[in-house]
Order: sequence, then structure tokens, then C-alpha cells
Amino acid sequence: MSQPLTLQELNTATREAFTALLEGIYEHSPWIAAKAWETRPFVSLAALEQALVRAVREAEAAAQMALIRAHPELAGKAMVAKTLTAESTQEQNRAGLTQCTPAEFERIQQLNAAYNARFGFPFILAVRGPRGEGLSRQQIIAAFERRLAHPADFEFAEALRNVHRIAQLRLADRFDAQPVLGNAVWDWAERLAVHSEPPYAERGELTVTYLSDAHRAAAQRLAHWMRADCGFDAVEIDAVGNVVGVYHGTDRNAQRLLTGSHYDTVRNAGKYDGRLGILVAMACVRELARAGRRLPFGLEVIGFAEEEGQRYKATFLGSGALIGDFDPAWLEQRDAEGITMREAMEHAGLCIADIPRLRRDASRYLGFVEVHIEQGPVLNALDLPLGIVTSINGSARLHGEIVGMASHAGTTPMGQRRDAAAAAAEFVLAVERRGAAAPELVATVGMLDVPSGSINVVPGRCRFSLDVRATTDAVRDACVRDLRAELEDICARRGLAHRLDEAMRVPAAPSAPAWQARWEAAVQALGLPIERMPSGAGHDAMKLHALLPQAMLFVRGENAGISHNPLESSTSHDIELAVRALQHLIEQLATEMA
Amino acid sequence: MSQPLTLQELNTATREAFTALLEGIYEHSPWIAAKAWETRPFVSLAALEQALVRAVREAEAAAQMALIRAHPELAGKAMVAKTLTAESTQEQNRAGLTQCTPAEFERIQQLNAAYNARFGFPFILAVRGPRGEGLSRQQIIAAFERRLAHPADFEFAEALRNVHRIAQLRLADRFDAQPVLGNAVWDWAERLAVHSEPPYAERGELTVTYLSDAHRAAAQRLAHWMRADCGFDAVEIDAVGNVVGVYHGTDRNAQRLLTGSHYDTVRNAGKYDGRLGILVAMACVRELARAGRRLPFGLEVIGFAEEEGQRYKATFLGSGALIGDFDPAWLEQRDAEGITMREAMEHAGLCIADIPRLRRDASRYLGFVEVHIEQGPVLNALDLPLGIVTSINGSARLHGEIVGMASHAGTTPMGQRRDAAAAAAEFVLAVERRGAAAPELVATVGMLDVPSGSINVVPGRCRFSLDVRATTDAVRDACVRDLRAELEDICARRGLAHRLDEAMRVPAAPSAPAWQARWEAAVQALGLPIERMPSGAGHDAMKLHALLPQAMLFVRGENAGISHNPLESSTSHDIELAVRALQHLIEQLATEMA
Repeated sequence: MSQPLTLQELNTATREAFTALLEGIYEHSPWIAAKAWETRPFVSLAALEQALVRAVREAEAAAQMALIRAHPELAGKAMVAKTLTAESTQEQNRAGLTQCTPAEFERIQQLNAAYNARFGFPFILAVRGPRGEGLSRQQIIAAFERRLAHPADFEFAEALRNVHRIAQLRLADRFDAQPVLGNAVWDWAERLAVHSEPPYAERGELTVTYLSDAHRAAAQRLAHWMRADCGFDAVEIDAVGNVVGVYHGTDRNAQRLLTGSHYDTVRNAGKYDGRLGILVAMACVRELARAGRRLPFGLEVIGFAEEEGQRYKATFLGSGALIGDFDPAWLEQRDAEGITMREAMEHAGLCIADIPRLRRDASRYLGFVEVHIEQGPVLNALDLPLGIVTSINGSARLHGEIVGMASHAGTTPMGQRRDAAAAAAEFVLAVERRGAAAPELVATVGMLDVPSGSINVVPGRCRFSLDVRATTDAVRDACVRDLRAELEDICARRGLAHRLDEAMRVPAAPSAPAWQARWEAAVQALGLPIERMPSGAGHDAMKLHALLPQAMLFVRGENAGISHNPLESSTSHDIELAVRALQHLIEQLATEMA
Repeated sequence: MSQPLTLQELNTATREAFTALLEGIYEHSPWIAAKAWETRPFVSLAALEQALVRAVREAEAAAQMALIRAHPELAGKAMVAKTLTAESTQEQNRAGLTQCTPAEFERIQQLNAAYNARFGFPFILAVRGPRGEGLSRQQIIAAFERRLAHPADFEFAEALRNVHRIAQLRLADRFDAQPVLGNAVWDWAERLAVHSEPPYAERGELTVTYLSDAHRAAAQRLAHWMRADCGFDAVEIDAVGNVVGVYHGTDRNAQRLLTGSHYDTVRNAGKYDGRLGILVAMACVRELARAGRRLPFGLEVIGFAEEEGQRYKATFLGSGALIGDFDPAWLEQRDAEGITMREAMEHAGLCIADIPRLRRDASRYLGFVEVHIEQGPVLNALDLPLGIVTSINGSARLHGEIVGMASHAGTTPMGQRRDAAAAAAEFVLAVERRGAAAPELVATVGMLDVPSGSINVVPGRCRFSLDVRATTDAVRDACVRDLRAELEDICARRGLAHRLDEAMRVPAAPSAPAWQARWEAAVQALGLPIERMPSGAGHDAMKLHALLPQAMLFVRGENAGISHNPLESSTSHDIELAVRALQHLIEQLATEMA
């Protein structure tokens, strides 16, 4: 191989030289580098990547389509005929696509044909995958089948995202700059996901609910890595099952920066929700310990035992315990098998009597920061690896029912109906409209159901849920109020009865400005644009908010940010940036306190 | 008791005398009789009832409310204080409301208070019930609880309907004119409903599916009544289980009038759907046989074995066999227990080889008429006992699904959603609009469901059904076509995938004009207005339509015409009118053929 490329070389090159140096990064499309050159110099490889992405984003749709069409089919029959770049050939080889079984080859040809017929361009997949080591042929075929069902405009964007990912991997090779920290975290996440409970484990699914065997194994694994691999000074599993690692400051009694996230999962979960925030922090401590560095403050990294509320109704049990928010009545709750939480905790050897002592003394902490996968589509759609959380949204959850009169669909004239589903349909559209009427507000009807509905019966009953979230409680409450009034209007006009019962209301947790600013500085230092966004989902930081200033960093999720799903995914490149952002925040804090 | 009232006496009375003669028929409201007097003379008691009903319908809402408020509370504490008419006292006594247990009395007082608070008028119930013999206290309390949940405007109309029913029963007493034929049919329907299959029978529910023990018992019972009570000349249970009774004409080989309906039921059914059409015809034959009369044509009354398609997928199996529409492939269908239709038929001793011979020779029949409970709210809302069917609607049934992308309800901005339920909501409203855009067309989304929906997930999938019916196939097809285009538009605009699959399409069966005219003449002869209406539901007549001219008569259903439900109900007064209408049609036919 030739000498690795350097930023300096690129930053000082002419447009022609620059374009030549980046030849083959984007398939047969030198115009992208030529355009990116205009925004030089680049402070980081990530900044260069962003400039290339921007060049494509700002291009005409026709140019984007030409870029997509410049790519070869996967294991295509045309491969021999078409001029493949050396990179394409190598990538397809590495993914084993040249060693397909006849059945696999046949299936891929079918998919190629169907995909091309549907979208009018070849299927593009970064076959080296999120870790850069190559997807299996099985994974490739599964992705192909899944993406064939996408809406056309979405799949067009997804194709471009894969083009950028391919370019990112090629650039990393050309620069000889591998995401070593990101790879380490990615590998930890894989290894941690080995622990899953039956019957999910048998199906290859990840499920880790509170104090299951898999959960206790995951805690043990985390504690072991903290101790043995990362060099934490003290590691313990506390009275509710939180894994708590402490890396002391120069002074053992110095205030601490608290960070972490949860290690429990939903059923059939992804591998990053929660866990990423623990592992990223662990990587930072590992680097400090390896360098033998001590800071003017301590680092306390917590893997929270429970956030998802899957086994018992209590959610945020792990972080809640740190703010004294553990309700002893929860101990008598029973899981689906009838096992009380108390029994589960005793079975795990946890010291229930110690729970009140888990409450933290705020004066001993600087604040709380949390890294988390976005669990949403925003960063993915913007082609940005990191986002700054401005506020964890306040939310309200409601359950509603409209009651009309069931009647025969054939014999009840349209004017004599009391159709509960038609009224619910009006409400669903009102929710959609109202949710879109204010920025940083979302409103959703996620459950909708005509109970025991029949094809030939006018619905007498329709049930639905309502979920409203906003950056401030006032915006959320106004939305709920308006929608309640709208539902009343709809039902009054149609002569129907209804109810709308609130099941949950959680206040918004805006980020502490000083901590948000530290995240922004860190992202900027990496050469990335600052994207501020609310967190629509709840996080442990929401609990700590009651005790400490807090701020969160979001990491882009692949696949439109899908979460609570095995398709949840993050690349080791993005994770690398998250580790570096947290390192930067820590260093900045050290500087401030020096 | 004084001398019974006669129509002649009323028809010749002054307004004052007329009002005096009808005193107490409507509670403390002599203005009703005074108004009805203007439309004298009355050709029948039914015509007088209609005139009284019309007087109330045409009155101001305030006068209607005063009429309702003139009634006492049920078992009210105020009963002693309030001036009760002798009729009210007697009716409440007869219903046992003066012998309530303390718990029943307490419950009724609670209901009185809740009802009055909700609607602002006392609960009115014709406590003598559909047979005029008094409801049980349990039935009264159940009706009270049910009606408390009604929409206010509907319950106001329901109160007036009960006022009219009370008046009808009082008039029958005053005239000493009991619905003897209607009572006989009503009693048969009760007796027939004793046969029900487990586990429904144990719960007091009526379920009679094809060739169950209860079904075979019902057939045996019908055959026995035809033979022993009604004087049919020949009765048999045919190769598919139809109960076929023949009452010969003066010439045994004379053409026959075919009539009847089905005796199978849906699960947890009402007692009249289908059965009424068999029993009404049996009552007519019984009267002919008792009088020793023979007609210039034979009467063939059939209790069809299967119409509802509950046990096997084949619907209209009974009437279908008469037109040669029995598919031998059905014999291999299995029920929920895995029993094939062939096994069930052999178990019942039916001669499967004879099924093809059930096909009727059209030249041997005059036509087919069918009496059926309306199964809809039209006659009930119009206060009319009988309706003339113009056409059995053509129908189409479709199943649809919209596929978007499931995503997190908190983290997916409104503008980035692919919400399948919101699209379905648009479609539901489009269906409602389109259904109302043409007369004698109905369109319904009866099933609506976000599969595995979660409160915090934007729906990625929404399933729904579509049922379209119209008096003509062209109107139905235009509706389906428009709705399909609308669904395409909605999904294209929102970037969603969808499918809409047709599961069934049945052509419309317009009534034969000559036979419809005979029903109209019969209804007119009873002194009733002619109300023409389509049949929104399918009926056996729809099958016979392929072979013979056909026309149907509808009988009002109580409780807004609810059917396929234990609340399905008809009064013996309405049934009496149905028997007399069929008698009239038969006599008219005899006259035509004389």
C-alpha cells in the first residue's frame, strides 16, 4: 500500500490534486470531492467526511441519482461487464459475495431484479457493515429483503447513506485511521449481548429484564470489565443491582462527575439502548488509566440496573434509587410468573435494607452526563453522527375510548350511525395536526383498535392511546388540553360518549446550560456541526435531573434510528466520535478546575 | 270490564268524545288523541295507532318532552305522591315492581337518580314487554342499565317509542284485540330458542350452527310443529338439513309459492333472525289448515338449514342447494374441531348423494317470498312495523392494510413519520364521506387495528376492513373504485405502501316488481303506510333470486333493530301484522289465480 493520506496533504492541495487524492472514495463521481474542496481546510477526518456529505446533499436530485447508479449491483451478473472500482471489487469479495452458494446467488439476482424494478436504481449496501469487518451473506440478504419494502423516497435517501458509509470506510483505509476506541466499545456491546434470557436467547434475540439470570450475568460482566480491563479503582454492584465503578481523582475525596446509562433492555431489544452510555464512559476511563492520568475530580460510571420497566411496573428503578425515589411498595409487585420484586432481589443476593443509602449527596457531585443512542431518525436523516440534547421532553400518556352504537353495516343508513371508529379517525387526524402545530412537540396515537370488530358491523367502540411530548411542560399541557377539547367536540357533534384518562405525566428535564455548552464545545472540537435537539424518549438523566445538573449527548442510530428492535445499530465510527466527545468534555472540565 | 271499544265507535265520535274514549292511552296527554282525530276514519287498529304516533312525531319537542315527563318513575319513591293512572299502577304491579327485594328497589332508585340526572326525564319502559305479559324485574333492571349508556338524543326517541308501545298495549286491552297469531309465533320462537349448543347454552345464549345437536333438535322441532300443529301435508328434512313442509293446493300438482327463511343462527344470536320467516309462514298454513281451506297453488315452507356461515365457510348452504349451488368441495371443509362437513352430514344421517336432486325446477314455482326481521334501525326510527324490500343490496367486502414505518413516538418528528394509522384514519373518513354521497349506499370500516400497537410507537402498520353495499352493483362498484383511488392517493401523498384485497362480491338482487307490489298491497290493506327500503343484509331470497322472482317483507326490530345479538327483539303485535300481511299476499294470489 502507498503512504497513508493526511489532512495536511489534502488541505494544501489544488482542486485537481484534491480530487485526484480522493479518487475512488465516491464511485465514479469526482464532482463530490471537487465541490468539498471549496470548504477546506478540514480540522479532522470527520470534518472532511461532513464536507463530502454536504456536497452530495446540496446536489441536484439527478446528480444524486447518477451517483447511486454509478454503483454496481450486489454480486451482479453485470459485475464482469461493468467497470468496478478496485474498492468495490475488494468490498464485495470481503463480504464473501463472490463465494455465494447457488441458492444465495439466485436469491440475490431475484432481489436485484425486484429492487431495480421497484426503485429504478441498484441496491447499495455498505457490505463492510457497522464494524467495518463485513456482513455475512445472510445479513446482506436480510437487509436487501427489508429495504425492498421501504417507501421509495426513503430508500433513495438510504441508498445515499450507504454511499456515504462506503466512502467513510474507504477514507479510513486511505488515512489508515481506524476507530480503535469505537471498535472496542462496539466489541464490548456484542460481547455483552451474549447474555439474554429464555426464550429470547434461543431465538437469537436480546432480552435482559431486571434481575433475570442474563441481567445478573451482564452486571457481572460489566463489573469485571470495569475492574480488570478499564482500571477503575472501586467497582461494586449496589443494593438495586446498579454496577458502580469509581475512578478516583487526584484527591480521593474530590467531587465526582457522574455518568452512565442502563444495561437492562426491552424484549427483543437492540444492543446499544442504554449500554452505549456505560461502555463509552468505560472506554474513557480505560484510556485515562492506561495513561496513568488522574483528574482534579473523580469519575463515577454507573450501569443502571433498570430503566425500561419490563419485568415490573417500576421504571427508572436504577437511577431512581440514586435520588431516593425508590418506593418500598414496589417490592411487593409481582412479575408475570408471580415472583415479587423482593423475592427477585433476595434471590440475587441484593441487600434490600441498603436501598435508602443509595441516595446521592448532590454536594459530592459536579453533575451528570449521559451518552445515548438517539432512538430516533433525526441524526440519521441529517447525516450527522452526534447531537446535543436541549431537553428531555415532558410527556403525557393517555388512554381513550369512544363509545357509539354497534349496528349492522349493511342495514344502518349512513345518517343513522354512531360510528366510534369514524370519530376516532377524526381524532387521530386532529392529533397529527396538533402535534405538527408547534415546534419540538410530538403527539401520537400509537394504539388504535375496534375491540371485537367485524367486517359487517358499524364500530360501537374504539380504543386508542395518546402520547404527547414537548420540550416544555407548558407546550405539552396546551396540546393535551386542546386535544381533549377537540375530542369532546367530535363526540358531541356525533352524539357519542367518550373518556380520555391520563395514565402518566412526566415533567420536562431541560439540559443544564453549562453542561450542554460543554457537549457543544466537544462536538465542535471534533470538527462536527452542532445539532441541538430534544430527547423525545425518557432517560436516566431525567431522574438525575432532580438532584444534579445534567446534559446528554446523542449518537446517531442507523436504520432511521430504530430502537427497541434488533435492527438498532450504530457504527464503530460514530461510537469513536462519542468516546472522543466525552473525553473532550472531561478534559475541558479538568482545564476549568485546574 | 266495560264493553270493548270499536273502530266504528271511534270513527263516528266527535273530537271531544274521541278524546274521552282514548283517555289514559297516552299518560295525561289528551292532545294526542285530539290531534289524531283529524285523520279519521281509521281502517284498522294499526292505522289508529299510526295516527297517534304521527301526532306525537309532528309535535314540538317541548310537547314530546312534556309527554315523557308525564310518566311516573319506575317503582319510584314518588309513586304514592304522584297521581298514577290506573293503567300505570296496574302495569307496574303486573311487572312485580311493587314486590321488589330491598336490593332491587335500592338499585332502581339509584338508576332513577342517575337516569334523571343524565337525561332530565324519567325512565320509561313498556314493562309489559314484547309479548305483553310483563318483563321480569331482572330484565327491567338490565334494560335500565343499558339505556343509561345511550346517547341523549337516541334515548329521548327510545323513551317516545316506549310511550307508543305502552299505548299500543293499552289500546289492545281497550279494544279486546289481542295479537293471537303474533303471540303464537312469538311463543314458537321462544320454544325453538331452547335448543342451543354448548358452551353457549350454559350461559343462556342462543347458538345454533350447522348440524350441531341443537341444530338437529331445532329441525326436528320445526318438522314436528309443521306436521302436528300446522297441518302440512308433507314434511321432510332434506339432504342438507332443510326442513321442508308442503301444504298442497286443490291440485296436488299445482305450482307452489315458496317461502321461508333459515333456522341456523350466529353465535350468541337473537331469536328472530331467519326463524321469524319460517314461523310466520307456518302460522299462515296453520290457519288455512284449521279452516280446511285449499288454494289454487301449493305452499312450500322451508326452514333453511344454513345461512350464516358460522361452522363452515360456506354460507347460504340451505337455499344454495335449491338452486344447484352446492360445491362438493365444501364437504372437505373442516370446522374448528377438525370435523369435515361430510362427517357432520353423515353423522346427522343426511343423504349426501341426494344433494344435487334438491335443485328446484323453476317452472313448478310461482315465486319466492321471505319475511325477515329488518336487522336495522330504519323501521324502528320511523315507528313503522313493516317495510317493503326493494332490493337486496349488492355487496363487496375487502381487507386492507397500510404499511408505513414504526418509529419511536417520542423521537420521531411529526414531519418524518410514516404513520400507517393516520393514513388509515384519513381512509376511514373518506369511506364515511363516500358512503353518504349516494342514496341507498353504505360503506363501513368495521375492523380497524394497529397490530401490536404500543402507546409510544408511531404505527408502522394498520389493518382495516371495508364493506360496501348498494341497491345496484353499479353504485357499489363505483364506490369501491373511488375508495381504492382515494386510498392510493392518501398512501402516495404520505409515502406508504398499501394493499386492498377483495374477499367477496355478491350481486344485488332487486325485488321482482309484481311480488313487491303484492307486499305493498298487503301492507296497505292493513292500514299501514308503505315504506320501501333496500335490504342491507344478505338473505336466502338473494340465492333464490337466481331461480325465481322474489320479494321480501321486513319486520321492525326493537332496540334500534340490533341483530346478531341477544337484544334482537320483536313484539307479538308486529309479528301479528307480518302474519296478516303474508295471509293477505296469499289471498291476493288466490284471487289472481281464480
